[in-house]
Amino acid sequence: MNTFGRKFRVSLFGESHGACVGACVDGCPAGTPLQPSDFTLDLQRRQSGARGTTARAERDVPELLSGVFEGKATGAPIAILFRNENTRSGDYAELLSHPRPGHADFVAAHKFGGHADYRGGGHFSGRLTLALVAAGVIAKKLLGSATVTSTILEIGGAKYGAHSAALEEAIAGGDSLGGLLECVVGNMPVGWGEPFFDSVESLVSHIVFAIPGVRGVAFGSGFAAAQQKGSEHNDPIVSPCGKTKTNHAGGVNGGISNGNDLVFRVAVKPTASISAPQQTFDFGKDRVGELRIRGRHDACIALRAPVVVEAATAIALADLMLLQAR
Amino acid sequence: MNTFGRKFRVSLFGESHGACVGACVDGCPAGTPLQPSDFTLDLQRRQSGARGTTARAERDVPELLSGVFEGKATGAPIAILFRNENTRSGDYAELLSHPRPGHADFVAAHKFGGHADYRGGGHFSGRLTLALVAAGVIAKKLLGSATVTSTILEIGGAKYGAHSAALEEAIAGGDSLGGLLECVVGNMPVGWGEPFFDSVESLVSHIVFAIPGVRGVAFGSGFAAAQQKGSEHNDPIVSPCGKTKTNHAGGVNGGISNGNDLVFRVAVKPTASISAPQQTFDFGKDRVGELRIRGRHDACIALRAPVVVEAATAIALADLMLLQAR
Amino acid sequence: MNTFGRKFRVSLFGESHGACVGACVDGCPAGTPLQPSDFTLDLQRRQSGARGTTARAERDVPELLSGVFEGKATGAPIAILFRNENTRSGDYAELLSHPRPGHADFVAAHKFGGHADYRGGGHFSGRLTLALVAAGVIAKKLLGSATVTSTILEIGGAKYGAHSAALEEAIAGGDSLGGLLECVVGNMPVGWGEPFFDSVESLVSHIVFAIPGVRGVAFGSGFAAAQQKGSEHNDPIVSPCGKTKTNHAGGVNGGISNGNDLVFRVAVKPTASISAPQQTFDFGKDRVGELRIRGRHDACIALRAPVVVEAATAIALADLMLLQAR
Amino acid sequence: MNTFGRKFRVSLFGESHGACVGACVDGCPAGTPLQPSDFTLDLQRRQSGARGTTARAERDVPELLSGVFEGKATGAPIAILFRNENTRSGDYAELLSHPRPGHADFVAAHKFGGHADYRGGGHFSGRLTLALVAAGVIAKKLLGSATVTSTILEIGGAKYGAHSAALEEAIAGGDSLGGLLECVVGNMPVGWGEPFFDSVESLVSHIVFAIPGVRGVAFGSGFAAAQQKGSEHNDPIVSPCGKTKTNHAGGVNGGISNGNDLVFRVAVKPTASISAPQQTFDFGKDRVGELRIRGRHDACIALRAPVVVEAATAIALADLMLLQAR
Repeated sequence: MNTFGRKFRVSLFGESHGACVGACVDGCPAGTPLQPSDFTLDLQRRQSGARGTTARAERDVPELLSGVFEGKATGAPIAILFRNENTRSGDYAELLSHPRPGHADFVAAHKFGGHADYRGGGHFSGRLTLALVAAGVIAKKLLGSATVTSTILEIGGAKYGAHSAALEEAIAGGDSLGGLLECVVGNMPVGWGEPFFDSVESLVSHIVFAIPGVRGVAFGSGFAAAQQKGSEHNDPIVSPCGKTKTNHAGGVNGGISNGNDLVFRVAVKPTASISAPQQTFDFGKDRVGELRIRGRHDACIALRAPVVVEAATAIALADLMLLQAR
Repeated sequence: MNTFGRKFRVSLFGESHGACVGACVDGCPAGTPLQPSDFTLDLQRRQSGARGTTARAERDVPELLSGVFEGKATGAPIAILFRNENTRSGDYAELLSHPRPGHADFVAAHKFGGHADYRGGGHFSGRLTLALVAAGVIAKKLLGSATVTSTILEIGGAKYGAHSAALEEAIAGGDSLGGLLECVVGNMPVGWGEPFFDSVESLVSHIVFAIPGVRGVAFGSGFAAAQQKGSEHNDPIVSPCGKTKTNHAGGVNGGISNGNDLVFRVAVKPTASISAPQQTFDFGKDRVGELRIRGRHDACIALRAPVVVEAATAIALADLMLLQAR
Repeated sequence: MNTFGRKFRVSLFGESHGACVGACVDGCPAGTPLQPSDFTLDLQRRQSGARGTTARAERDVPELLSGVFEGKATGAPIAILFRNENTRSGDYAELLSHPRPGHADFVAAHKFGGHADYRGGGHFSGRLTLALVAAGVIAKKLLGSATVTSTILEIGGAKYGAHSAALEEAIAGGDSLGGLLECVVGNMPVGWGEPFFDSVESLVSHIVFAIPGVRGVAFGSGFAAAQQKGSEHNDPIVSPCGKTKTNHAGGVNGGISNGNDLVFRVAVKPTASISAPQQTFDFGKDRVGELRIRGRHDACIALRAPVVVEAATAIALADLMLLQAR
Repeated sequence: MNTFGRKFRVSLFGESHGACVGACVDGCPAGTPLQPSDFTLDLQRRQSGARGTTARAERDVPELLSGVFEGKATGAPIAILFRNENTRSGDYAELLSHPRPGHADFVAAHKFGGHADYRGGGHFSGRLTLALVAAGVIAKKLLGSATVTSTILEIGGAKYGAHSAALEEAIAGGDSLGGLLECVVGNMPVGWGEPFFDSVESLVSHIVFAIPGVRGVAFGSGFAAAQQKGSEHNDPIVSPCGKTKTNHAGGVNGGISNGNDLVFRVAVKPTASISAPQQTFDFGKDRVGELRIRGRHDACIALRAPVVVEAATAIALADLMLLQAR
């Protein structure tokens, strides 16, 4: 459902073209310093503005509605609201009968009996990640010296930085591109993770796969581990604090952080909304027909995803950190 | 922690060299037919016996301790117990001061203040998957016509079936191999999944990453999606029931099953316990030293993993199925 | 924490003298009709305005921020916000060093390290019940033909309706009164309740005891049952649908509703904030001293409690109803 | 369902006349000393053996199946099993068509479609409290200096100790008696409880109402609070550590423990199974008919309830204690 976490608990709400998106964050320890300006950097990183990202301009000003008093968390739930301002709902009406390939249009209409808010993807929109990023800002503050850093490795198969040609080609063709990200958590303490079921990988993948567009999550050597020998993959411990010579495990053994960097990669699919025509089922005409998607869309959502992956990771780790406290 | 699921809820307990491993399964609908022989096939698949799997011989007879009456689930929790019989705990004492690379030895000792049962990996042992497979047998019964099938694609980078040479080489060298699996759920209904946070991918990856040795989980096109264009990746809908021409999404849009096969791949690392000598920190001697692991181990745990991945998947899906019921 | 429920899930946030109070309601089935006017009656009942209730005048207009589209629930979380308008925070500053007897002032300061919002009781204020009542309005819509009705039986030990003299005396003396309520759920279906731990009584008492000021909850014969014989207390079944001749059980056997009315009583303590002087510890002066509480308070919160108890009950039952669906 | 708790989590399973009853306890901190003899005293207290308690003789020997190693908790789940030995299932077959008043027979058959194990009440039997008491033994060990003590105040309306005549009369008449208990937790620290929804009263009442036969739970002054004035009910703070002059609140303000004794009363109904004939619906004959219950039953379950209430309370408090740790 729309809540994640046991002791640090994030609930999301809102729609792309409704009144707002927001988050309710419960379990933030009292005394944590918190003010609106803390959110600025990560919210800007999410907006990006880079070539290949949406033209929808939102100010994304966080309203801290509760749980903060005199610049500090009170221990009560922190409700954060972002009013939607720049909405153009007229763009979406035809998608009711002609659902977009790769989108939640069809499943949402099915699951919710035709009552889902379809405008701009409604509750399934990437705009929900705005609230996730805001909750992540709070989570990051709880992690002590642990640092969560996510970067783009590739866009459309090209190394990040050398991806301009592929991106321009996609934009020109009304197409979109996927991307590959890496997330590294430095200064991870030993001992976070609650196996059997709530391993570090379990909670991190749970929340990262909730981010729209994520297709794969892999820790350490990831899928390459399937091709390795144990003598190659095993990470010899080289110091009493648990530091290892290599980090093929990605910082986790037996579901518990081992004191090395937590490292994982995330595959982000290309944006589903492309302006190039697509042949897909038209429920209005009861046959396959051509769909041309209008509206403003990112040519590559991966470009905006690093801070979202960071937020998701920080939320999972904040919960694990509080869970392991005795 | 050691419980997974909201309406179909599985709790695991036990240790590799303790009295038993077991599961407590809550939420199985009353009337579900259930008898000990239902477990035989999947338990045998987990034992495998194939070249490259452990010599530890256990009968693995399930005791159905509760929740079953006259061959049917009663609606009360189903406790299942497997007594450990073939244990050789003497093999493990030295690992206390010389933790194995790639194992939970070090983190377990750290997290649990030296009180973890270290014998045979204790609660971190792959033997816990015995209880998971048993719970999965129950879960599979709840899925109606949906079928969960997991197969091995590769062992040590070689195509499954053509992996003998690589395996023999690893065994001869006291080494181990990883493997790549695919899991396909056929006859998936439309509408399972509870986003934002409890998407199909989120719950499936959560529980699959709880399986010891899993390094990566990727749906549909997986990591290849990061290199695709939207026009390649999008799956056009071609029928009113939601069937798509391709299945790059792996059967899920917006976190909700779309009526196509659920498809994902799982990367399994090589077994950490290898008999070849390893240089790793010896806490007894306070310096890096040579470790030679004794005991009986699988040269390739991926060979035994398909039924475990099936069980995990079935458990997550049974929960999602019950959660979406109104 | 600040979330209740498994499938019908209510999260509360807000403070008495902060920006707002609100609720985030997840799990409301799509298609449930919902509009702002649905809240009017119950919100007015909570305001009461009766003699003995607070002079704080709030308009209590619900903002439906999300999860509702074209007059119906969409299946996404429903966020409801009430802006605080009539706040006088200056009344409360001295309570920091001189906590009120019977209030959360002392424990909140202790638990949250001095960071709790103390103004008007902050997150501990009875004003939070505004959000609870709003969530209850939604819950009531889900219960089908089941009706939740709470009434006042006694005020200050006097029969309701004949309590004027006691109330006037309390008001004149700067004092307050407790009260006794009864809640009856008619048309209860057989089969709600998820024992062992999630019995009807368990979930109802859990949420009713979350209402500020509740001291006791008792089902059916309640505490009188302790004085009865089995031959008196047992309710003989007199019809095949489970109707019983008497209802000493209060409509529940073995934690599961039995098809008779659910009946329970709730004891509400007298309002803690009284204007009469009280001798209590003054942390500023480090000794017991006289406290005179200013501000606007209800002389009897029980007068406003029926609709709050109804809301809490409806929320618990909505969750149980959805949990028992297969 | 059959699990309680978030960080200290107890799952119950088993049936009265099945193979066993048991508990799976997750979240017990590693290093907690634990051995079979720790359970002896509380298990004996539950057996009681006093006049008015059942003649069913069980040895109730706990098997510690997992999570304990070398006399200490390992941090892994602790599974505890009690084999049933003295069962006489033949006594119960007729209850299928002639459900007992005051019992779960009717609702269990309805909810579980006729598949519930009806023998001896099955999963609804008071025998499940055996597993609860065992889990409570572990919980009590976690509470530090806090002590949980439950005593009987009244039996059948007579003061405990002076109840012999009433009890003998009930036994002679094939009848049963209810009882009134008080539970006091001494040395309660300030700050346990997680309001809004997880107040101390909420969690304690949740689990206490899960005990079969409990009709009412009331804290401090309890239902008498409804008749009090604020000037009478308020507890003035008289020391800087929060000690109060009186304890009408029962040790909790705003849902959080205030450092005084936690005090509450529990009303236990008379045993439903009485041997005196009862007129109740006979589904076999489709009309009201006389039921004569055979089998061995307690004339007064309240006599055995104190240790069960203690266990339930300790479990709730252990969870709250671990939840408040940072």
